[in-house]
Amino acid sequence: MAKRERKVKKKTGKIVLASGTFDLLHLGHVKYLEEAKKAGGKNAKLVVIVARDKTVEKRKGRKPVMPEDQRKALVESLKVVDEAILGYEDFDIGKVAEKIKPDIIAVGHDQDNIENQVHKALAQKGLNIQVVKIGKFGKPELNSSRKIKKKVTELYKR
Amino acid sequence: MAKRERKVKKKTGKIVLASGTFDLLHLGHVKYLEEAKKAGGKNAKLVVIVARDKTVEKRKGRKPVMPEDQRKALVESLKVVDEAILGYEDFDIGKVAEKIKPDIIAVGHDQDNIENQVHKALAQKGLNIQVVKIGKFGKPELNSSRKIKKKVTELYKR
Repeated sequence: MAKRERKVKKKTGKIVLASGTFDLLHLGHVKYLEEAKKAGGKNAKLVVIVARDKTVEKRKGRKPVMPEDQRKALVESLKVVDEAILGYEDFDIGKVAEKIKPDIIAVGHDQDNIENQVHKALAQKGLNIQVVKIGKFGKPELNSSRKIKKKVTELYKR
Repeated sequence: MAKRERKVKKKTGKIVLASGTFDLLHLGHVKYLEEAKKAGGKNAKLVVIVARDKTVEKRKGRKPVMPEDQRKALVESLKVVDEAILGYEDFDIGKVAEKIKPDIIAVGHDQDNIENQVHKALAQKGLNIQVVKIGKFGKPELNSSRKIKKKVTELYKR
């Protein structure tokens, strides 16, 4: 029984769960997702939770530039992504983890807030899921949506 | 012999050449690239020419928000794209066509200017390459980099 379970697991590969808003997609997003998938080893499957417009609005005080359906579709069009799903509006990572059953949850370098919520939710639900923190990548400029928005605003203001 | 040739042809498929700046990547870009690849039929290979910073600056009077290396890498990270290449700084589509030897050149709905240059260059070089015009997609909003920049500027100006 234990052997069979292991076999099934090996065949499908580990499931890695990543998440984010992915507003104005940039190379930093892609690098984060690539590293997240790598953490799952060979044949890993990468499932990405894309934050809902309402969740972002609640957390940051304004909606993303790109609506949620477009952000989800764009994330799903990336080679590294196996599946993209819109999150729950109340951002319940415990509920997501119970549904997706990932082996690993990958947290971005700028997601300290989410990392705390993940650990809390997993402890509450008694879920044994590895949490991996992904490092920062590339040149310091233009690897965040905030910086891109700033540059656009500077370039296009009159 | 004929059978073997057919087999080889089936394996490699038609080469489709698409091009663009792909500054602030959005779903309209992905749809254009998907339709371009579809025009090549089964097993088509999609090669994308990404415009150089200098070419864009010369044509539009200012550089793109994202530098060329990042735009190229982001385009290459899309499922639909087999290969992304930076263009020549002087935008010579005839030179590109001679090098890549595409079966089809796909022109976007907003690339009338480029369409004319393509036809002219192919005639000059005596190249017999099919030119396919790709339609416009999706909702009218946020399927152009210009509109995204406008929205960012509106949201973030103080």
